[in-house]
Amino acid sequence: MPLEPIAGETKHPPGIILASGSPRRHSILNQIGISHSVVPSLLDETIQKNIPLYSEPEYLAKQKAKDVSSYHPEALVLGFDTLVYFESQPLGKPHTDEDARKMLQRLSGHSHLVISGVAIARNGKILSSDSEKTKVFFRNLAAREMESYISGGEHKDKAGSYGIQGEGARFVSRIEGCYYNVVGLPVSKMIDLLKQIGEIF
Amino acid sequence: MPLEPIAGETKHPPGIILASGSPRRHSILNQIGISHSVVPSLLDETIQKNIPLYSEPEYLAKQKAKDVSSYHPEALVLGFDTLVYFESQPLGKPHTDEDARKMLQRLSGHSHLVISGVAIARNGKILSSDSEKTKVFFRNLAAREMESYISGGEHKDKAGSYGIQGEGARFVSRIEGCYYNVVGLPVSKMIDLLKQIGEIF
Repeated sequence: MPLEPIAGETKHPPGIILASGSPRRHSILNQIGISHSVVPSLLDETIQKNIPLYSEPEYLAKQKAKDVSSYHPEALVLGFDTLVYFESQPLGKPHTDEDARKMLQRLSGHSHLVISGVAIARNGKILSSDSEKTKVFFRNLAAREMESYISGGEHKDKAGSYGIQGEGARFVSRIEGCYYNVVGLPVSKMIDLLKQIGEIF
Repeated sequence: MPLEPIAGETKHPPGIILASGSPRRHSILNQIGISHSVVPSLLDETIQKNIPLYSEPEYLAKQKAKDVSSYHPEALVLGFDTLVYFESQPLGKPHTDEDARKMLQRLSGHSHLVISGVAIARNGKILSSDSEKTKVFFRNLAAREMESYISGGEHKDKAGSYGIQGEGARFVSRIEGCYYNVVGLPVSKMIDLLKQIGEIF
């Protein structure tokens, strides 16, 4: 059920576009009642080397939002990017099962950071952007747990090779920060930015 | 996809029963691949006055697990109970919309505790039990946000009058602890207890 605006107090833009093909982000926007269209950015997501550490997600979120906004100038475009950082190194999506195994072995028994960037664009320009950081603590994982998880395939399209919103919930003992940020869409941060630019939901 | 046991290393009990009618707990057990039946305990959930503060959820989880276990002695029975505590006072489910409004007004802009008790029973006896605590931080909520949320009805069967897994996600800026504990089933704590009693999944 979308939050109903009250006349004179709030406004809804004519159209909101989610510049991401992630079904998880789409589902979170639906969950909190923000109706939107989906237009994934086709930009290359390769991390460039000249971006300062921990700024990559916001940089990529801005690139994606600007890209889609240039084709849909009237809409309010929301861009996101999420990376997992372990020992100051960004971990993207695994290319192979062996990649995934190595990532899970590194994360087991330790904490890591998940950073999502969020960017809002209109008329091909960024109106606002920021990033959100959540610390995630993993249990000590048994080898059979990791093998079973990898054989299930859930790791395949996930930064850091796990999904906290899926069977990967088993791995996480606690978090410090925004849960939805770990899933890929920092709800509270996005609402703050929308309020700052006067788009109140 | 359930985690597959490897012969000689892990075992699955003949049957697992979830002693709760909560669709959210049922869905979390499915999500992490634990197959089970649902047999809600019909015990009165009223909080008794002689239970020490913060021990109510574990006490109620034990009562429910023992109750269902007495009818299904062969099964491994999982009992849960979740309460929201604000300023050392337990908040249960709201009885009316006005109850919900008051609870959300109190939680707005502050942090509160969510405590879930978990208890495992067999043959009418508790094998293991514990509780898990998560600190939840609410944004400052506008009156219209609360009214819109209440008119949507999501608050009705929720301790503290919100669901973090639903549109209530809008209210939460961050948490410290286990996310699934806030939803009602502390995944990591439950896995720890199952491992302790030799029921490894």
